[in-house]
Amino acid sequence: MTKQVKNAVGRMIPTEINGEKTVPFKGIGKHRPQGRKYAPPIPTAIDYPDNGNKVIGSLEEALVKCGLKDGMTISTHHHLRNGDLVSNTIFDVAHKIGVKDLVWFPSASFPCNEPIVEHLQNGTINRIEGSMNGPLGRFVSQGKMKGTAVLRSHGGRVQAVQDGEVKIDIAVLAAPSADFFGNANALNGPSACGVLGYATTDYLYADKVIVVTDNLVDFPNMPMEIQGNYVDFVVVVDKIGIPEKIVSGTTQITKSPDRLLIAELTAQFLQESEILKDGCYMQAGAGGTSLAIGYYVHQILKSKGWKSHLGFGGSTKYMVQMLEEGVMEHIMDAQAFDLGAVASIAENKNHHQYPVFNAYNFHSKGNLTSMMDIMILGATEVDVNFNGNVVTHSDGYLLHGIGGWQNCLHAKNVILPIPLFRDRIPVIKDEVTTICGPGEMIDIIVTERGIAINPRRKDLIDKMKNSTLPIKTIEELKAEAEAICGPSQKPVISDEVVAAIKWVDGTVIDVVRKVID
Amino acid sequence: MTKQVKNAVGRMIPTEINGEKTVPFKGIGKHRPQGRKYAPPIPTAIDYPDNGNKVIGSLEEALVKCGLKDGMTISTHHHLRNGDLVSNTIFDVAHKIGVKDLVWFPSASFPCNEPIVEHLQNGTINRIEGSMNGPLGRFVSQGKMKGTAVLRSHGGRVQAVQDGEVKIDIAVLAAPSADFFGNANALNGPSACGVLGYATTDYLYADKVIVVTDNLVDFPNMPMEIQGNYVDFVVVVDKIGIPEKIVSGTTQITKSPDRLLIAELTAQFLQESEILKDGCYMQAGAGGTSLAIGYYVHQILKSKGWKSHLGFGGSTKYMVQMLEEGVMEHIMDAQAFDLGAVASIAENKNHHQYPVFNAYNFHSKGNLTSMMDIMILGATEVDVNFNGNVVTHSDGYLLHGIGGWQNCLHAKNVILPIPLFRDRIPVIKDEVTTICGPGEMIDIIVTERGIAINPRRKDLIDKMKNSTLPIKTIEELKAEAEAICGPSQKPVISDEVVAAIKWVDGTVIDVVRKVID
Repeated sequence: MTKQVKNAVGRMIPTEINGEKTVPFKGIGKHRPQGRKYAPPIPTAIDYPDNGNKVIGSLEEALVKCGLKDGMTISTHHHLRNGDLVSNTIFDVAHKIGVKDLVWFPSASFPCNEPIVEHLQNGTINRIEGSMNGPLGRFVSQGKMKGTAVLRSHGGRVQAVQDGEVKIDIAVLAAPSADFFGNANALNGPSACGVLGYATTDYLYADKVIVVTDNLVDFPNMPMEIQGNYVDFVVVVDKIGIPEKIVSGTTQITKSPDRLLIAELTAQFLQESEILKDGCYMQAGAGGTSLAIGYYVHQILKSKGWKSHLGFGGSTKYMVQMLEEGVMEHIMDAQAFDLGAVASIAENKNHHQYPVFNAYNFHSKGNLTSMMDIMILGATEVDVNFNGNVVTHSDGYLLHGIGGWQNCLHAKNVILPIPLFRDRIPVIKDEVTTICGPGEMIDIIVTERGIAINPRRKDLIDKMKNSTLPIKTIEELKAEAEAICGPSQKPVISDEVVAAIKWVDGTVIDVVRKVID
Repeated sequence: MTKQVKNAVGRMIPTEINGEKTVPFKGIGKHRPQGRKYAPPIPTAIDYPDNGNKVIGSLEEALVKCGLKDGMTISTHHHLRNGDLVSNTIFDVAHKIGVKDLVWFPSASFPCNEPIVEHLQNGTINRIEGSMNGPLGRFVSQGKMKGTAVLRSHGGRVQAVQDGEVKIDIAVLAAPSADFFGNANALNGPSACGVLGYATTDYLYADKVIVVTDNLVDFPNMPMEIQGNYVDFVVVVDKIGIPEKIVSGTTQITKSPDRLLIAELTAQFLQESEILKDGCYMQAGAGGTSLAIGYYVHQILKSKGWKSHLGFGGSTKYMVQMLEEGVMEHIMDAQAFDLGAVASIAENKNHHQYPVFNAYNFHSKGNLTSMMDIMILGATEVDVNFNGNVVTHSDGYLLHGIGGWQNCLHAKNVILPIPLFRDRIPVIKDEVTTICGPGEMIDIIVTERGIAINPRRKDLIDKMKNSTLPIKTIEELKAEAEAICGPSQKPVISDEVVAAIKWVDGTVIDVVRKVID
């Protein structure tokens, strides 16, 4: 067994994963990758058609011409979400032509990627470096994947590629519209998804780039969210996605009374603490509770005559409504969650495409996350030290990706509105199953039965000392949950490492171990 | 004296220039730079302000914090053209703090840069790698610059930086608008110049980037023509430029009868040869003759009910008029020449910002130039082998930059409308003073006394055989000029190499030698 060492948050980390030396997490801001960014090979225009037309007959032909071979790393983005019809077919082709031991490097995976399990079993794919949602996570947790999974945040993925930790051999980028030169965006077409903010890193740094579209449009296809100058081939297919599974027509505010209560408490806390203020920068998600918080915040801003200066997406129709009413001045957007948001990107001047490359990249000359005043995030578990987990459940199963969660922890005020328990399992633990983010970066936990402020935030504790809100310690919240549900059970896991959890700087903050059924 | 070798166009090239080995020109498409693109150092967000505010007190402070020291390469763009108030001040600062032997790497220089001569004399600047317009060229031609000048095309400049041939230590980028994070564009402000299409390469590849603006606007300043994520410091000054010298209010069609005749002949040739066709891609310049050709082409297109699918800028109000009348469908633009063009970029959906990085980069996965049907270019001299010169005059003085000229030679049909003589000096020679582009890439020479088709273009000769246009051989045109002006005089030059002329692939196609007064 590989040697393990204890990292700065006390977790045991193998010194080597997938044959590469690891750097154990050293503490926040303690690790700076040295050296230079990754440098793709120099191309020459004479190796590409003079007339600019890079359309090729099929994905198979494109992959073969890109030199697909054993052991390569293939990247994809997840903008087509659960309607993605492209990612799985790459590995069907690879399997058909007998290529083995690939690394799949998606920006996220979805239940629609369940067929990938077959390619993990038949040897086409060695491992996934990316999120493990649902069935793929279960497969990994059972120790069935040949290689070790590596999970990175959206920003960490950018960092890993930029810094040469992950070398993308071929990026296969689905595009709702593309011209023959490879200029692509997501504004139009049957699979329009608004924005391709996760594909920037891939096209800039991959050795070879294939654009796959079901909507070949006239040159020049502007704006160039993907620049044709970086594209090797354009493949035209019948359908890249299933529209109703790409964007939801129905992102909806929660109707659960408990969740609405959490949202109301959160909004009131934001107001009383004066974190919510005129001109604030805010980010929430598209979950039902987050949308409810957005709704309450919207009402407060309106009643005060205030504006949010900017909101960072994933965008929703609710954010668009704020923008259109003038309650939010800018939406910066890497991903559109619903049809209202997709339409807005094409129409509203202040709804900007803003790649995670620019928003979340910790190895950049600044990024957006540290500028955010209000950051609403989720968690599967938190612990009494405010450490957060977003990837595993309390039974030890790896069922979620990190998303932008770690990146967003760099905001000024990080608020986790979470239920005190789920399915009678307490959410607050003595110790989280997997540490995805250190407690020192999480400021406020809001539950339906009380709000805990991180003791490090003396300013907030002080500000809220006369509040009528149910401010409690995190230990009190934990005790309340256990009084109702009984004490938390530890998951039954083996020593075998099945996945590494990277921090935003490329160090390993924790690992996931095989679950014993 | 450094050893010299003969290159593929028969010119003697030193094997070393400025201490670096040269690659002599091998022929078109014969040289592919090997290896990988240049990789700037990896930055880390914690070294930049959390609140995103990178504004610093002065250019001097910024330069010092960027580690300005002897021998560094400092890049600038030329979008402020003859109204640039930033470039010279960089070297004033360097001189003041005693830094020596810098390399100035502008995308072009203008008469307003004459004060640079002083810094070439006082040792602050070792050499200029970039265009040598007017006084700087004269200084170089007299052998007074310490280092050897290196001239590159706009696309060659991109190639040289991308491929690591030129390493930019500090890019100082004047911006008509910028936010505190460094996101910049040229759409608004007192020095608005429309587009910053020459700055892309610089901000992407420089180790350090300073944005200098006279118009600090709210974050986020969109679109991000310069992305703040690559910017180290933002300097706010009173004025970055003199508006009336940045963009011309008065780009005007020539009134000279001879030039108008050349324009008319060119337009008629384009029509008869069917190079001008519905849907064509075209590019001309902003000189008086080019504008006249544009005018005639516009009329022909209109009368036929045709459209040009796209025009590549430098854009002018005349192109904008075509766009707005629907006679041109898209303007792709790296540089706006007049106020009409600047306004159009901000307003017209199909007037696109399109950097030379994307248009002219020969070491890219395709580029725009090879897609152009009609390419109207100038020249100071051509020879009987159709070789072209754009940098020196017939007296040997280096007085112009290459601009995009070499890149544009890759178009399908390259037409040079030029006068048969200037100031009674014939323009057609036995041999050009300096070869900037090989004759095999130049298709048609149009003069006021006749049109010469390159013998390699048998298709065009065939197509025009029944034309009433004055089609002649190039030798006939040369003889006509000499009958009027007398034979061409050879310039009196020494052996001393004062400047290298690079081809688009980084090889040396010719050198300029010291003029003997």
